[in-house]
Amino acid sequence: MENRHISGILEEMTVEDVERLDPNLALVPIGSTEPHGPALPYGTDSFSVEAKCYESIKRANFRGARAICLPVQKISLNNNFYGLRFACRISVPVFMSMVRDIVRFLEGEGIKRILIANSHGGNTDVLKAVLRDMAGEKGIFLGLLPPGPALPASSGLLGKVLEQPIPAGGEHGGEWETSNMLFLKPGLVRKDRIGVYPVNHPKIDSLEECLVTHVKPWHLHLPASAGGDSRKASSEKARAIFEEGVEAWAGLLEELSKAPESATFPF
Amino acid sequence: MENRHISGILEEMTVEDVERLDPNLALVPIGSTEPHGPALPYGTDSFSVEAKCYESIKRANFRGARAICLPVQKISLNNNFYGLRFACRISVPVFMSMVRDIVRFLEGEGIKRILIANSHGGNTDVLKAVLRDMAGEKGIFLGLLPPGPALPASSGLLGKVLEQPIPAGGEHGGEWETSNMLFLKPGLVRKDRIGVYPVNHPKIDSLEECLVTHVKPWHLHLPASAGGDSRKASSEKARAIFEEGVEAWAGLLEELSKAPESATFPF
Amino acid sequence: MENRHISGILEEMTVEDVERLDPNLALVPIGSTEPHGPALPYGTDSFSVEAKCYESIKRANFRGARAICLPVQKISLNNNFYGLRFACRISVPVFMSMVRDIVRFLEGEGIKRILIANSHGGNTDVLKAVLRDMAGEKGIFLGLLPPGPALPASSGLLGKVLEQPIPAGGEHGGEWETSNMLFLKPGLVRKDRIGVYPVNHPKIDSLEECLVTHVKPWHLHLPASAGGDSRKASSEKARAIFEEGVEAWAGLLEELSKAPESATFPF
Amino acid sequence: MENRHISGILEEMTVEDVERLDPNLALVPIGSTEPHGPALPYGTDSFSVEAKCYESIKRANFRGARAICLPVQKISLNNNFYGLRFACRISVPVFMSMVRDIVRFLEGEGIKRILIANSHGGNTDVLKAVLRDMAGEKGIFLGLLPPGPALPASSGLLGKVLEQPIPAGGEHGGEWETSNMLFLKPGLVRKDRIGVYPVNHPKIDSLEECLVTHVKPWHLHLPASAGGDSRKASSEKARAIFEEGVEAWAGLLEELSKAPESATFPF
Amino acid sequence: MENRHISGILEEMTVEDVERLDPNLALVPIGSTEPHGPALPYGTDSFSVEAKCYESIKRANFRGARAICLPVQKISLNNNFYGLRFACRISVPVFMSMVRDIVRFLEGEGIKRILIANSHGGNTDVLKAVLRDMAGEKGIFLGLLPPGPALPASSGLLGKVLEQPIPAGGEHGGEWETSNMLFLKPGLVRKDRIGVYPVNHPKIDSLEECLVTHVKPWHLHLPASAGGDSRKASSEKARAIFEEGVEAWAGLLEELSKAPESATFPF
Amino acid sequence: MENRHISGILEEMTVEDVERLDPNLALVPIGSTEPHGPALPYGTDSFSVEAKCYESIKRANFRGARAICLPVQKISLNNNFYGLRFACRISVPVFMSMVRDIVRFLEGEGIKRILIANSHGGNTDVLKAVLRDMAGEKGIFLGLLPPGPALPASSGLLGKVLEQPIPAGGEHGGEWETSNMLFLKPGLVRKDRIGVYPVNHPKIDSLEECLVTHVKPWHLHLPASAGGDSRKASSEKARAIFEEGVEAWAGLLEELSKAPESATFPF
Repeated sequence: MENRHISGILEEMTVEDVERLDPNLALVPIGSTEPHGPALPYGTDSFSVEAKCYESIKRANFRGARAICLPVQKISLNNNFYGLRFACRISVPVFMSMVRDIVRFLEGEGIKRILIANSHGGNTDVLKAVLRDMAGEKGIFLGLLPPGPALPASSGLLGKVLEQPIPAGGEHGGEWETSNMLFLKPGLVRKDRIGVYPVNHPKIDSLEECLVTHVKPWHLHLPASAGGDSRKASSEKARAIFEEGVEAWAGLLEELSKAPESATFPF
Repeated sequence: MENRHISGILEEMTVEDVERLDPNLALVPIGSTEPHGPALPYGTDSFSVEAKCYESIKRANFRGARAICLPVQKISLNNNFYGLRFACRISVPVFMSMVRDIVRFLEGEGIKRILIANSHGGNTDVLKAVLRDMAGEKGIFLGLLPPGPALPASSGLLGKVLEQPIPAGGEHGGEWETSNMLFLKPGLVRKDRIGVYPVNHPKIDSLEECLVTHVKPWHLHLPASAGGDSRKASSEKARAIFEEGVEAWAGLLEELSKAPESATFPF
Repeated sequence: MENRHISGILEEMTVEDVERLDPNLALVPIGSTEPHGPALPYGTDSFSVEAKCYESIKRANFRGARAICLPVQKISLNNNFYGLRFACRISVPVFMSMVRDIVRFLEGEGIKRILIANSHGGNTDVLKAVLRDMAGEKGIFLGLLPPGPALPASSGLLGKVLEQPIPAGGEHGGEWETSNMLFLKPGLVRKDRIGVYPVNHPKIDSLEECLVTHVKPWHLHLPASAGGDSRKASSEKARAIFEEGVEAWAGLLEELSKAPESATFPF
Repeated sequence: MENRHISGILEEMTVEDVERLDPNLALVPIGSTEPHGPALPYGTDSFSVEAKCYESIKRANFRGARAICLPVQKISLNNNFYGLRFACRISVPVFMSMVRDIVRFLEGEGIKRILIANSHGGNTDVLKAVLRDMAGEKGIFLGLLPPGPALPASSGLLGKVLEQPIPAGGEHGGEWETSNMLFLKPGLVRKDRIGVYPVNHPKIDSLEECLVTHVKPWHLHLPASAGGDSRKASSEKARAIFEEGVEAWAGLLEELSKAPESATFPF
Repeated sequence: MENRHISGILEEMTVEDVERLDPNLALVPIGSTEPHGPALPYGTDSFSVEAKCYESIKRANFRGARAICLPVQKISLNNNFYGLRFACRISVPVFMSMVRDIVRFLEGEGIKRILIANSHGGNTDVLKAVLRDMAGEKGIFLGLLPPGPALPASSGLLGKVLEQPIPAGGEHGGEWETSNMLFLKPGLVRKDRIGVYPVNHPKIDSLEECLVTHVKPWHLHLPASAGGDSRKASSEKARAIFEEGVEAWAGLLEELSKAPESATFPF
Repeated sequence: MENRHISGILEEMTVEDVERLDPNLALVPIGSTEPHGPALPYGTDSFSVEAKCYESIKRANFRGARAICLPVQKISLNNNFYGLRFACRISVPVFMSMVRDIVRFLEGEGIKRILIANSHGGNTDVLKAVLRDMAGEKGIFLGLLPPGPALPASSGLLGKVLEQPIPAGGEHGGEWETSNMLFLKPGLVRKDRIGVYPVNHPKIDSLEECLVTHVKPWHLHLPASAGGDSRKASSEKARAIFEEGVEAWAGLLEELSKAPESATFPF
């Protein structure tokens, strides 16, 4: 047993693995189950975040981190998808309470550094609101990782490998997501349905000029539930992006886990 | 595309698959992530319910049902596990709200027959409370499938294949669960840690004599987080139980999906 | 004053009685107000639980227990009774919050052993959910007594005195409940309306075979709001059952109240 | 059956009684269980409101009203009693939700005229807040009857029969409440403990001069949990007050029940 | 900087002003935005409470108090105004939670003496319910100042200067409120629309005789959203009332702020 | 009356003004009351948003819009300010409920186009979460305007007039906010305390590289509660920014109010 490497993937560990790892950092992956157009499966976001988190945490722990990864939350927020079918959703207040409860559970386990890894764009604002809500809890660091390819700020990779910039053009179910599923779950991609799907925009010009935030009814924005041109998607593109992203996240987990305790962390 | 069989497993389907299946029945699997003793992984309940639901729904739909299965909810209730580490949990009111929201989401999709398949004993009473809570919503049938091997009422299989009856002796992390993981996730079982683990009981005799329900602090009841003798566990035992269980559930899904609409369903 | 025996029935006590008793155990009775068929009053469950709790606690305290009994909560859960008239009800979340508040109030009074005595079948699952909800509160023992005749596990009395087994046949408003009201509140029983009332069952066979829990719309299940054959009901039958039940509960209260303090109680 | 007069007391009625009465007005009695000094029982408020409501509704229905009275809610609000023992209480938001649920239940039964009869001073402000909360529900009339002797506005009886005016001097557990219990529940009154108990007042004069509302910690205000001089209390005083009060309430119930339906009721 | 007098009006102070004042008492003004008839602005209640609080606190602090005044909450409760336009409102439970949060925020700042100054009659009962709700929080004094002219109890000024008594006749938008706006915000008063507006009352006489509290749908009670005769309103009347009121409140703030700390305050 | 221009500022309008304007668009301003360093008042955000909203709506209505502006909500979110004094705050769930209630109130008034104008950075994410929460309410357009100078996307003005870019350097209480208060509330600015205040940043580099969102404890980030160099602040700079911003917002309000009704608005 001594020699077995402990992954940090909680659902695959035993109670004795947990005791040996003695985690001080937790990663909370949040996906979604919702339409991704004619070519991609409903689970696209969940598959994506699970793969990236599980691989990152294994690498970080191999390098000495003490990080643990919860299982993926696969049902989250999609109430702007009411015009499309079976976009799984719970209400915003309940989702927030659920995430808050998970954070409090982790606090109860003695974890003071918590990262939420969210792969679904519809969750981002609400997760930031949870961060605000818990900002008064002293002594806990709670961070949120961005959805999408989520490459490091300094990376130039996306511009090199993708034809379609993100988000404009490389929309939901677009080139990157299609590449990613071709890489992670090729058996679930309907290759014959990869194509170009329309992207609609509001007609009131001053909304954009005045930087007004609003939530788009998805069936008006992307009637096919995916948008953009994915015909240049490939497994190879996703592999390169995945590898660079996982390395960055593994480094983050390692740095956070190894940083000394401090009352003013991360300042 | 015409010829492709549609599984009913939502996270693996595309938006066009959903439109073709046009479901009238939903299955909502609920697992858990919590200590299962030195031999079994934290994800035991989640792996178990996913396998059984996914296989059942595929068979039912192959026979003409129109059933859809949501992804597994892997974080649920474990607040009596506070004496053991990393038993993932949210609070009871939030869990109830989450399940209620999922049922309401399904209602909004036009689904009037909903089955919750729960594999974690710690959730059962609370899910029954959700059923009570929603009992005033006319026109919806909401049922709950039992955890554990969940063989048909008329089956005698358990008594034949298991040495340890359930629950007494064949406790949490016991012979059946160990067999089941050896069958479903052999790579995650620590075979060298399969053994006999203690089971403790309350000392106040009149509690049992008066049929008093109470929730056991799990570390007092099962200090190793698993209990009973699992040395006779085997993949074969689980395979037989799984096959009989899946057939029964497939039959249930088929009957429920095909039953005619009625204002007094299921009466 | 020294010589006066203190009953433990809070609503009949003075502030000085409470100080003298100095309770360490509380009993929380929960009844219901809902249709019980043409012969029995709406208050059947409330009258039943009040009589049993009040008599049990008097006997227990006479034998040296320090137990206190709150007044009966007469409005509880009946939202599956929407097809019958004036089944008093509050919603499940509010009922749960109310019970939780009562338990917390008792904790604030220094009571660490609390028994809920519930006489209404529609409350049982939800009260178990409250027990789950509060299972994380260390140092409190919270138990739930069963509804109905609630004789000791080892008793064979019911089989001897009743014609109609419980629940099948001896349903809601059936032989035992009719006997009990003839015993406790004969003036409120419409003897001319005692008779045989129909009991309906679901038509989907696999629901029962697969052990599916669901909440029956009561007007479909028992159209007269009572069911079974109560013609053999008698006050004498109830008296015998009541006496045996009260003795058992008095013994339980005594044992619980006198058991030494312990961090692992009741283990 | 034809000739039996139907009382309107729900817990004493059968389902067929309810159908025959076909109520259009409901009375919701709310009591309390809390210390009432050395002479009076904890249930003083509950006994008082039950007696008055039950007698009023019987008289009103005898005169042709169609009114129904729910059972008494005996646990309500006492969180300013934290310095005295076993003042039963739930929290303000839960109490409000409970009352709101009861009103909604009654609305669901087709009742559009609802009176809450509350006998506990600690509930009054909060029940008024519930009235505010539900003031946006069109078509429902929801009224609140005052606690205490609650004689008609035009009555001069209190001044004639009581030595101690209410509230000043005739405080909680004072002359009127003691008289009332001697009338309603003489066996529960500790006559040897009837006497004079102290009443304390705040020391900051400008609070009263500026009409500042604040909630008194009860143990600072009435250290014995009762206050004032009750030595002149008698059953006869209470009988006269009760009779006049019951007649007034019966008249109110009758007028409300018989008033024609109107979209602008009671205007 | 040393010499600058610090007003206590938080929104006009800097962080260093707050540190220098080091408050021990807080004033929380609550107004409303709702129709006040054809002559007065929607902000009448907000303007009124802001003027009185700001002037009172300045005077109190000038005399040595350490009091701080929050900004006015201008949206509060008006759900009985559904028949009139744009009466700004949030729901009762949310309003209560908001006030509770503000009180808890002040407690967190070390403030143990808190006065709510409310100028809107529709808020009074609910604010009293908040006081009840927080009555279990030991060590905090939470008081509520009355709406309207709110002169000292011993004042006889109103009877001298007003033609129309309050509330009867000098109703919402009546003589006093009109005078007050002529004094505080003359530019916002439509002087040509000052006049006599109708006041309606319920038709069920026993409601008043039995002292039944109910919330009036405002459009039935005051169809013009103001009522009574305001033709004698004048700025001078309001000035006198304002001056006497401000002096009384300044005295109250001073006495409360200077009173010694005590575990039993204000007893 | 015919000739009077109606501003759209609700608190300054009468009930007849509202009827004449008959609004179809609402503006909901949200400010904050919190420390803004040694030079600026706590009310900085509230003063800023009120001035901009009130001026914009007057101009829009003058040009034919039918827009109404609610009063400013001055207490909002600041729970990351726990290390500084008197940053007024309510909790995130209550704030969200309050905003949701206001939106629902406006919906009840028939308003289908609603803009929230928020001037406090600490509210932005949470207001976006409210937008998500309400994204399932069909037929309502709910938008959020950005805090800060909020000039049009195409404007280059900021870069021309400010020395310190926003946000880096031109932080909270920085050059723009100081200019703005010098312009709007010069009497409340402590000119002798305008200066350079420190801005601290986290020490974990990978947080920024991995684009991790987290909420900074404000006292660690800006120990003086303001940060950056404000010595070049001037009223003139703010005037130019204000004028350009107000014009843009007036145009937005006009376009939104005049756009034809449509089931797919703004698409």
